Amino acid sequence: MKKDYAVVGKSVRKLDAMEKALGTATYTTDIRLPGMLYGKVLRSPHPHAKIVKIDTHKAEALPGVMAVATHLNTSKVKFNTSATSTFTIPPLQPVEDQYIFDSVVRYVGDEVAAVAAVSKSVAEAALKLIEVEYQLLPAVYDPIEGMQKGAPEIHHCEVGKNIPGEKIHIEMGDVEKGFAEADYVFEHTFKLPVQKQAQLETQAAVAQVAVDGKVTVWSTTQTPHPTRRILATIFSLPYSKVRVLNPPYIGGGFGVRIGLSAKAEPIALALAMLAKKPVKVVYDRKEDFTSSDTRHSGYITVKTGVKKDGIFTSRKISATLNTGAYCSWGAELPGVLGAMGLSLYYCPNQMYDGHSVYTNITPAGAMRGFGSPQAIYAVESQMDIIADELGFDPIEIRRKNIMRPGKDWVLPYPCLSSGLEECMDRGAAEIDWQRRGKPTQQHSTKRRGIGMAAGTHVSNSWPFCVDYSNAYVTVQQDGSIHLASGVPDMGTGTITTLSQMAAEVMGVALDQVGITIADTESTPFEIGSHASRTCYASGTAVVAAAEDAKKQILEDAAKTLNTSPEDLYIADGIVYSLSNAELNIPLSKVAVEAHLRGKQFIGVGRIIPKNAPPYLAHFAKVEVDIETGKVTVLKMVAAHDVGKAINPVIVEGQLEGGLAMGLGYAISEEIKFDGKGTPLNDGFHKYMLPTAVDIPELKAIIVEANDPSGPFGAKGVGETGLIATAAAISNAVYDALGIRFFEIPLTEERVYKALKERK
Amino acid sequence: MKKDYAVVGKSVRKLDAMEKALGTATYTTDIRLPGMLYGKVLRSPHPHAKIVKIDTHKAEALPGVMAVATHLNTSKVKFNTSATSTFTIPPLQPVEDQYIFDSVVRYVGDEVAAVAAVSKSVAEAALKLIEVEYQLLPAVYDPIEGMQKGAPEIHHCEVGKNIPGEKIHIEMGDVEKGFAEADYVFEHTFKLPVQKQAQLETQAAVAQVAVDGKVTVWSTTQTPHPTRRILATIFSLPYSKVRVLNPPYIGGGFGVRIGLSAKAEPIALALAMLAKKPVKVVYDRKEDFTSSDTRHSGYITVKTGVKKDGIFTSRKISATLNTGAYCSWGAELPGVLGAMGLSLYYCPNQMYDGHSVYTNITPAGAMRGFGSPQAIYAVESQMDIIADELGFDPIEIRRKNIMRPGKDWVLPYPCLSSGLEECMDRGAAEIDWQRRGKPTQQHSTKRRGIGMAAGTHVSNSWPFCVDYSNAYVTVQQDGSIHLASGVPDMGTGTITTLSQMAAEVMGVALDQVGITIADTESTPFEIGSHASRTCYASGTAVVAAAEDAKKQILEDAAKTLNTSPEDLYIADGIVYSLSNAELNIPLSKVAVEAHLRGKQFIGVGRIIPKNAPPYLAHFAKVEVDIETGKVTVLKMVAAHDVGKAINPVIVEGQLEGGLAMGLGYAISEEIKFDGKGTPLNDGFHKYMLPTAVDIPELKAIIVEANDPSGPFGAKGVGETGLIATAAAISNAVYDALGIRFFEIPLTEERVYKALKERK
Repeated sequence: MKKDYAVVGKSVRKLDAMEKALGTATYTTDIRLPGMLYGKVLRSPHPHAKIVKIDTHKAEALPGVMAVATHLNTSKVKFNTSATSTFTIPPLQPVEDQYIFDSVVRYVGDEVAAVAAVSKSVAEAALKLIEVEYQLLPAVYDPIEGMQKGAPEIHHCEVGKNIPGEKIHIEMGDVEKGFAEADYVFEHTFKLPVQKQAQLETQAAVAQVAVDGKVTVWSTTQTPHPTRRILATIFSLPYSKVRVLNPPYIGGGFGVRIGLSAKAEPIALALAMLAKKPVKVVYDRKEDFTSSDTRHSGYITVKTGVKKDGIFTSRKISATLNTGAYCSWGAELPGVLGAMGLSLYYCPNQMYDGHSVYTNITPAGAMRGFGSPQAIYAVESQMDIIADELGFDPIEIRRKNIMRPGKDWVLPYPCLSSGLEECMDRGAAEIDWQRRGKPTQQHSTKRRGIGMAAGTHVSNSWPFCVDYSNAYVTVQQDGSIHLASGVPDMGTGTITTLSQMAAEVMGVALDQVGITIADTESTPFEIGSHASRTCYASGTAVVAAAEDAKKQILEDAAKTLNTSPEDLYIADGIVYSLSNAELNIPLSKVAVEAHLRGKQFIGVGRIIPKNAPPYLAHFAKVEVDIETGKVTVLKMVAAHDVGKAINPVIVEGQLEGGLAMGLGYAISEEIKFDGKGTPLNDGFHKYMLPTAVDIPELKAIIVEANDPSGPFGAKGVGETGLIATAAAISNAVYDALGIRFFEIPLTEERVYKALKERK
Repeated sequence: MKKDYAVVGKSVRKLDAMEKALGTATYTTDIRLPGMLYGKVLRSPHPHAKIVKIDTHKAEALPGVMAVATHLNTSKVKFNTSATSTFTIPPLQPVEDQYIFDSVVRYVGDEVAAVAAVSKSVAEAALKLIEVEYQLLPAVYDPIEGMQKGAPEIHHCEVGKNIPGEKIHIEMGDVEKGFAEADYVFEHTFKLPVQKQAQLETQAAVAQVAVDGKVTVWSTTQTPHPTRRILATIFSLPYSKVRVLNPPYIGGGFGVRIGLSAKAEPIALALAMLAKKPVKVVYDRKEDFTSSDTRHSGYITVKTGVKKDGIFTSRKISATLNTGAYCSWGAELPGVLGAMGLSLYYCPNQMYDGHSVYTNITPAGAMRGFGSPQAIYAVESQMDIIADELGFDPIEIRRKNIMRPGKDWVLPYPCLSSGLEECMDRGAAEIDWQRRGKPTQQHSTKRRGIGMAAGTHVSNSWPFCVDYSNAYVTVQQDGSIHLASGVPDMGTGTITTLSQMAAEVMGVALDQVGITIADTESTPFEIGSHASRTCYASGTAVVAAAEDAKKQILEDAAKTLNTSPEDLYIADGIVYSLSNAELNIPLSKVAVEAHLRGKQFIGVGRIIPKNAPPYLAHFAKVEVDIETGKVTVLKMVAAHDVGKAINPVIVEGQLEGGLAMGLGYAISEEIKFDGKGTPLNDGFHKYMLPTAVDIPELKAIIVEANDPSGPFGAKGVGETGLIATAAAISNAVYDALGIRFFEIPLTEERVYKALKERK
């Protein structure tokens, strides 16, 4: 049931493409204000310690130093950098476990103090003059160890030792009964690494305090409205006196700045208030690595009961995640991990138990996929094992079990569409699936294999979190359209996609749409860009606002033309009559005539979006060097049910970017810590992000199942690109070597060791 | 019927006071962008000439010059700097008589070319390298001469020689019959000078063109939305691709930048497009004098028929105004002049004929009062003559004739309130009126006198012009309020006054209100700050938006509290129940609970405001030195019916500022031109603006007649402060000397000459 659209579904050039190609796009780091100072942060060299004494006199005396901030002269309001206070729905309580600066440091890189000075170098020099006396405390780095009775207490927790928030429990049917009914029961535990978002632009903020106390913060946040709220809370200001905006671009996000950009905003603002000057804080890459959220590492156990015919009877998943020194999304993410792990397949009896544990490493938080890559890696690795053990083709056993619309699942919203079968079929054709299981080149030192994995995710955070969007669409006096949405564009094509939707609804050309985004002062509340929701949820609000404006136009024109609104529609910038072509009138004329009567068409979209499952099947072709253990991925295919691609090239870009990120998760990316909590991979020379030369042939296949809940049928696509990549590659490595890995990344070292052990 | 208000009616400190006192407030001239160039303008040395040849090669070759703009490489779209295309209501047609640069120059100071360069000095040096060959054309400077058959044609006009737009004719009753019924008929002609707005900040704009063609213009305009529209038209852009904003402050306006800030915006934008860099254009004071609108000069004749008892039977006013080389508001202003001149008093038979005439001097346009100061000077000077001739006290004869609510008049809206009688009575008491007509100090060379004059004006430009306002009021999750209005704050207290109104309606403290103004991207359409309309009309939209938001709050709270919205009201940030105090709940709680349910309260105000007559009585006590002719004003009293003073100190400030401007109009301010059209007073050393030491004792008296059409009863007060000042002072000089002047300003020279002639 495809409709013919004029603008939607077209791969128009991204509206920001020229600016970015020519280097004129403005980012937070580009902001320069008169009298602006530079802020730098002193960070803890210890994984856990009490600050017994801190002496800033020498730093303050250094010429050019305008302010020094410590736990002694800054806000005593506790917060969570991820602004969970905005997202959390009672009766759950947001975990708020940190101050801007505290008298205890809990990880190597934790904030001790900050300096604002006339230059970065003066600020850095001043940091060295701050004298801190620490009393070292015992530390713990592994989540299993961290939750033991005897472990050092990092934060006091009600639920259990070092367990933030509530433990997540999900249940449907009777798992014990289900396992009893099974012919086979599989149980495996998988270990997940610390991955880094590694977005191009590091965390940054510029804070300005007007003499009347009004605050403006330019920020790299993905969520200006929630960030405004958290800053107002920390500094005890009315929300209406705080303006947070992107400037307007962000160099990537990947979840690392839902809420605050680490602590760039509150540190810049605290310094600006102390110095009475604007202050810019830009994390360097090392700070971004050591002191900014990562992906949760940890352990996931999957237990599955299966009948001989391959049908699931019961499934139980449990997860223990390492949330590091502060909670960020540590209380919420285990829930999404469990829900996604359980919802890919239909199974009448399901259970999940999961939680995070505090340890003395860099805090983990949101990262693209938000628990799904972890869950899907575990579930889809085990699926491969089950297929192998029961003698099924991996696609065929999945086809038997996949969730289908109308069936029950653990999620609190219905599954209304699924293109997963089409994804599997088209992906299989593209990867040359029939070659799987057929050993190649046994005479050489290279082994090739093919693997696949399916996956799912969300299109939104509703109803798990507070999640809503508002938007304005105003019609200008020439019939052109202005769209205002508080959602950012992290480079994902937001401004283009939303503009396309507005143009489509309003029946105007894309070049007639202007857009304002990501500014709390110019837009109504909008939760922001996260959870793959921008196109799906913010888009729904934009459509609603445009529909509201269009309704006003048609009613106004109908009155003028002496017909009914139902007789009219807008296309190509013209209001057409269905009944009488002589009534046709340019939108510009309707707009200017309304203006002459003192009227502007102002549409307001107010939306609590729903949710919808995107589906995906990833395929990988790999070659493993059995002498070195090196895994080379030769080709990756990602077939995704995106509901409807508003802009196919942008969707492909999202999928390809996700594939690359998943490739790193699978074979190279990991932050390790030494025995004293110091991260060993704190820069691009030590952290093995795939580069352009590492990227194999990529093939993105767009499947459109048209979900009825999404704008034009769209579902979320921002995160899905990486969700099944690690499992697909791991399964392909199994196909090549016959070795099953229960841990990623599949580094040369790890694969070489496994090959050696097998011998 | 005074209501008790919590915030309205209180003289709270202006919200921008601290910023302005400390010098941190940002104005257009403060805008600095990376790579920004400086634009300077080459201006005509001739009053009327054809540009036969213009050679810019040498200028372009000067190092640092990035663009040179002339009539040869810029827009060929005609416009009117006052954006009348946005304001004019059909069947009237806006007069559009100029280009950015033309091949004909029509006054000394007219734009010939402009240069964008890396510095102001390079740009100025380049101007000297532009070679222009002029063919001189005959010129005319007086409007009476300009409309004669043989006068040089400055623009081709349909209505009559050099007469822009339509002639204005207003008629009520039968004036000839009225004059026939009169016992006395008075007819006098008055001559008005060229006054300059002399706002502190000169005309300025910064234009930036993004690589995708989107335009941003920071501007000193009083009307960002109309200015956006005129720029989009000149440069053939969709309106939605042009952003116009104040930054956010303006150093005064007084009408001089309704629409464009002279040509600062289009010149900056034309240069930015040519140079592909941001360009700043700031007029120097001389340019501001020579090439930026002035107050219309000209001739006004008033003919009045009066019965023996002092009652008017007929009145006829005619005006011929000098609009200079381009029309600006020259087609519209004669209408307001006539309407205001006829509407102060009730008279059954009235007629007005008026129009402007093009001449080869600096264009005249809108200036505070917009025709009323001219009309009231003439009408109220004659009123003094009539009173004198018929032997009435000036106040008593006015009392007999003043317009009263319910009576017919020439205006297309009803008179619903008048506090004029109270103004006259309270002003008379303050000035010691009974001392009038009693010669003092006859033994010295000083003569003292007392005079008064009444006046009226508008609160808005509706229904004469397109005039409407929209506003957003959003409720934040802590119950604080954000207000967005497209109207500027020219220093008049807009942000404070509008915030007070929003706070009052919403029942919150003033410090809970944040405000965004004067940005086309952050606000819905709003006609802007002119015609004394900001508080009255923009305020009405703000009130409507706040009422809309409040309605949503009360409905939401009523549902939660299981009561009716009518049972609830908001005060002190608390939603109170009339029936049950236990239901009382903080607004912050209502807001955050709505947030948790995915709802923000978003109010939209959409208003076509009405109009209402402010009334005023001015009194002056003067001392004239009969040896030198020097007029010293000792005291001025301004009693104004402002409807309702939203912020009394701001209202007093408006009145006092107006008094000072009226004082200049009365005794010192005038731009004269030499025989060749060159202005002789083109700077503050040559143009005699009253300074702090010239200002006498001022007494502003606030009278509140509470107009039912205004927000909280308010009427316009932005322009009224100067309207009757010149007449009051001229009448006081008559009281002192017995000499009647038919021309202002009453400079030493003019008064000395009159004293000498009398001898």
